[in-house]
Formats: sequence, C-alpha cells, structure tokens
Amino acid sequence: MQESFDISSSSGKYNVVAGLDLLEQVVSEHPDAIYMVDERLAGTLPKSVTRKILIEANEGNKSLEKMPEVLLKMREAGANRTSHLVAIGGGVIQDIATFTASIYMRGIPWTYMPTTLLGMADSCIGGKSSINMLGYKNLVGNFYPPERVLIDMAFIQTLNADQVVGGLFEAAKICYARGYQEFLAYLQESPTFPMSADNAQRVIVRALKTKKWFIETDEFDQKERLLLNFGHTFGHAMETALGYRLWLHGEAVAAGMVVAADLSARLGRIDAVATQRITRILERCGLPTRLAPGLSAQGVRELMGVDKKSKSGRLRLVLLDAIGSANIASDVDERLLLAALSAHAQVPA
Amino acid sequence: MQESFDISSSSGKYNVVAGLDLLEQVVSEHPDAIYMVDERLAGTLPKSVTRKILIEANEGNKSLEKMPEVLLKMREAGANRTSHLVAIGGGVIQDIATFTASIYMRGIPWTYMPTTLLGMADSCIGGKSSINMLGYKNLVGNFYPPERVLIDMAFIQTLNADQVVGGLFEAAKICYARGYQEFLAYLQESPTFPMSADNAQRVIVRALKTKKWFIETDEFDQKERLLLNFGHTFGHAMETALGYRLWLHGEAVAAGMVVAADLSARLGRIDAVATQRITRILERCGLPTRLAPGLSAQGVRELMGVDKKSKSGRLRLVLLDAIGSANIASDVDERLLLAALSAHAQVPA
Repeated sequence: MQESFDISSSSGKYNVVAGLDLLEQVVSEHPDAIYMVDERLAGTLPKSVTRKILIEANEGNKSLEKMPEVLLKMREAGANRTSHLVAIGGGVIQDIATFTASIYMRGIPWTYMPTTLLGMADSCIGGKSSINMLGYKNLVGNFYPPERVLIDMAFIQTLNADQVVGGLFEAAKICYARGYQEFLAYLQESPTFPMSADNAQRVIVRALKTKKWFIETDEFDQKERLLLNFGHTFGHAMETALGYRLWLHGEAVAAGMVVAADLSARLGRIDAVATQRITRILERCGLPTRLAPGLSAQGVRELMGVDKKSKSGRLRLVLLDAIGSANIASDVDERLLLAALSAHAQVPA
Repeated sequence: MQESFDISSSSGKYNVVAGLDLLEQVVSEHPDAIYMVDERLAGTLPKSVTRKILIEANEGNKSLEKMPEVLLKMREAGANRTSHLVAIGGGVIQDIATFTASIYMRGIPWTYMPTTLLGMADSCIGGKSSINMLGYKNLVGNFYPPERVLIDMAFIQTLNADQVVGGLFEAAKICYARGYQEFLAYLQESPTFPMSADNAQRVIVRALKTKKWFIETDEFDQKERLLLNFGHTFGHAMETALGYRLWLHGEAVAAGMVVAADLSARLGRIDAVATQRITRILERCGLPTRLAPGLSAQGVRELMGVDKKSKSGRLRLVLLDAIGSANIASDVDERLLLAALSAHAQVPA
C-alpha cells in the first residue's frame, strides 16, 4: 500500500511517496525526462527511457571538479530550463543530482528515487547536497529539494546485510535524536535483516516522519537539525582517518556516538548507565563501539578540527543531556575530550 | 543622504542602501569578513582589510571550471560556515561571489557592493548568478541574494562615459518594461553623463524600486521577470557573434530592442510609429539601432536557437503589445522573424 506525505521547505512543499511499482510510475509520468542513474542500476531502467546519464557512484565523481562533465552531458541530452531530471541511486547520485538540478540553467525541477536504505530512511528528504572539492570532503554543497521523492520498496531486495544495517542505524539515530519515546516506537517496528518490503516501508516511513520535524523546524542546519549530527564529528574524523575504507558511514557514526555519550558522562551531563545502555544497543545491532583498529585518540582529535560544523574556530559537539535529548556544546574541556577518545581506542595513546 | 529599502525573497528580506561612505561602513561592520574584490579596485580597500581574494574580472574566470580555484582561496583564507563574504565589483564579481557564497559549506551570508552603473541600477538585486561552462555562456547559475546590497555613490566617479551610458540604458529598459508612465518618470530624473553622485542616486533608486516589483512578483524568472529580457534574445545572439568584443551588453540589447519592436509591428501587435519612437529614443542616447557591422540576419537567427529562455525547443521572445507593455510569444512566424532581422542588418542577406 502506498503512503504519502508532504515536507514544507522555503521553496514550497514537496511530496514523499513510499510503496511498490514507483519506478514504472515515474517513467510513465516523465517519459521525456533526463534520467541520472547509478550505472550499477542501468539494467533496471525500462527500455523506453532514452535520455539517460549513467554515473559511477564514487567519491571522486561527487566533486566540483567533475561537475562540468556531468552538466555537459545534460546539455548534450538537450536539457533546457523546462526539462525534468529523475535521479535513481544512493547518496552519491543524490548529491550529484541535487547539485546539477540546482545550477543547470539556474535550476530545473527534479524527482529523486533513493535505492539504498540510508537514502530511503534518511537522506532523501532535507534537500542537502554534499560535494567534495580538491580533496576536501563535502566542502561545498547547497539545499535544493526535489519536487518529489519516490521510494520504491523493490530496491530493498537489491541490498546486502551491511547496507541494510547501516541504513537501519541512521534511521535509529534520527528517532533517537528526537527523544526516547520516538526511539522506543522505532524499535517496535522491528528493524531487522532480512526485511520484507512491508516491514521496510514501516521502518522507513517512521524515520522520515521523525526527520520531517527536524528539517521543517530548521531547514538550513542552524540549530535543531544539528542534533542529527550526534556522533558525526567523531565519525567523520574516523572515516577520514580510514580513507573511507573499512567502515561504512553508519559504523563510524555508531562508534562516534559511544564516544560522544562517554564525553557527555565525563562532563556530568548524563550518568554512566546511560552510556552503557547506548553501547549495549549498538553492540546488539553488530555495530562498532570503539575507535577503528589502528586509530589513536590524538589522531582522531586532530582530524576533528576541520569539521565544517565548527564555529569561530571552536569545536561544536552534539552531546547528550539524557537519552534522546541532545544539545550543542561549544566549550568542551580538551582533556576530557581526549580522555573519552582514549577510553575507546584500540591502540595505546 | 542615504536611502534604504527592502527586497522580499523566498529566503527572507534583504536590505538595499544607496549613499556615500558605505565602503568605510562595511569595513567597520565586517572587519573579519573575506573580501572578494575586482583586482582593479584593490587600491580602494582600506589597509585594515587583511582577508582578501582579488579576482580579474573576465568571462574566463566566471566559469564553473575556475570555481574550485576560487573556493580553495576561501578555504585558505580560513572561511567557515559562519564567515561573511563581502564582494566589491561589477557583474563578473557579483556572479562569482553569488555562486561562491551559495555553495561554500552549503551557503554563507554575504554583502554586495556594486561598482558599475549596470550593477548598481540593475543586477545588484534579484539574486541571480550566471556562470559559463566549457564555452557555454551562462549555462549554469542559481539564485542566492546577499544579506545586504550597499551602493556607494563614490564609485560613479570611477566610470567612463560608455560604462555610464550602458548602465543608464539598462535602467531605462527596466522602467520601460514596467510601463510608459514609469518610463516617463525615469526620463524626468535626467539620466545623462557626466552625473553627480546625487543625480546618479536618484536614477539608480528609481530603477531599483521599479525592478523590485518584477523580482518580488516573479523571483524565479517564470513570467513577469522575463519581460526584463526585452531585446535580450537578439542582443545575446549578437554578443555571441561578436565574441563579446566591440559592443557593451547594453548596446547589444538596444539593437535587440529595435528588432523586437520591429517584429512586434510586423505581427500587428503595435503600429510602426511605436517602433520609430523607440528607435529615436535609443539614437538620442547614442545607442546602436541596427545589427552590428558584419552580422547577417541569418547568422544572428542561428545563434538565437540556443538561448536558455527557449521552451520545449521553441523560441520564446518578449514582444511588445504597446510601449511599456510586453508579453511572451512562443510561436513566432519564422519568415517575419528573419524579415525583422534583415531590415536592420548592415550586410546583404
């Protein structure tokens, strides 16, 4: 059964639909659109689609340096101001499509069809793009929501266990950031692997409706939406240290959450029992709860300095006041920060 | 005397101020901002400004290929999400600054200080950027208005006659597009060269307040704002044919307006007297009223085909119904179009 709801943004409302057979629906509604598709999914496109741009989904292609190449393909496909773009793929395709649609001839309408669980349950709404530049991860980007988000549950069956778990984790994090009741409600939807299409749809719709509150309250990432970054400053630093190998994004953020909770406890914001509870939940999901092997506390700390969430040079961290109640702290004691990292390192300091 | 008014946009109101000593004011309000400045104006910056990016204002630098270089300079200057950008220069600097501010770390606030009459009287409001890409003129761009526009009349004295006339012409065109009464009111402000700062301020504020109606009614160029493109489809084609040499933008658009008026008459939308009146006004301003020397009607027509205002492959032209009343026509008879161009060519067809 299809479910549908709207998201309000400064550029107007856009619509989110979750259900089956949505790929067929978009192709019949937009036969002349330009389809920007993850090349691994090229085979799933109906033959009737002739205007397509296939993209290899990797970090190198998600860069400002590569954008002229992508936009030239738009031009060669005959796109004009009134053309429609349909993007089908995961986060990298979404980033490239958001950026392309936002700047081609000063902006064209587009539709997004996420194909990973992370995309379906989290990134597909909110309108953000993140683009690398000259080796700087996600240094550029903007906000340009699609006209419509179509979540076709058929893509769930193309995902392996790691991909599903990573996505379920992001969904959990959203509900967690909203509050303990929301987090319990999420757990009651039985987020597990393998998932039926039905089960997946329930989990995804719950996560998106929770995220809807954050992005409608704070579209441009000024305050409330920053809470969704719980664990991310630590997680990003570890991802950078690992060169985006070994760990999925969700795994790095999980380990980051444990460090953030530990630091919150050291600062007297929560008690140690709360930290243990988070750690146990993550362990039960098969997620890491320590720094990645080989990473030192000091090494991770140094990589945290260049996070773009830092304000006026000071590091801003999302810390807990209770499970499900986070706040932004900008004046964290450097010794306690290092102590929280060291406590979870797998190498000596 | 300073004058100030607001412009409403989907991302909130922004403020426009015209007067003297505004450069000093912005430097004292934003001592730590990053200043992006036309390199020819580097000498006008107070010594206290230390974070600056000097840019050679040319079409080549206003390109997507060159943006990574500019954004890298932002990074090297230490810009973060809360940094402020101040841009000082003409249209090219405005385009580069709009684009930079819109995508650096997903958008930072900025202030624009136009230094050409075209910038002061027209382009400084509306929030548009136009960026070249791989040889395609203005193929990319977006909308990202500054937080504030500060028009310092001192810059008027740095302009030569051609630059002033080009700017006065754009201002005239805006008032003209709004209606005959608005156009008469504009002429009463005595737009001439040389101009005193006082005189310039009156002309500029009138043009901007007129343009305000267009951009508040149609922020994203869907309908009313297209009327400001009167003469532009013809003008752009001539500029392209001339390789952006010989004629200023305003001169190409002036010649384009005559052809557009002639075509409107051939289609029976206005009478021939109206065309003659427009031609006489432009001649009196010293502006061209025929195609540039060496350009053929057919040559200009072919270059009109790729204008991004074309919809579904069809050419959309802004044509007159009366002086000061324009509308968009999308089904223009090709023979009449060529006849209007031929009638103003300086070479045999």
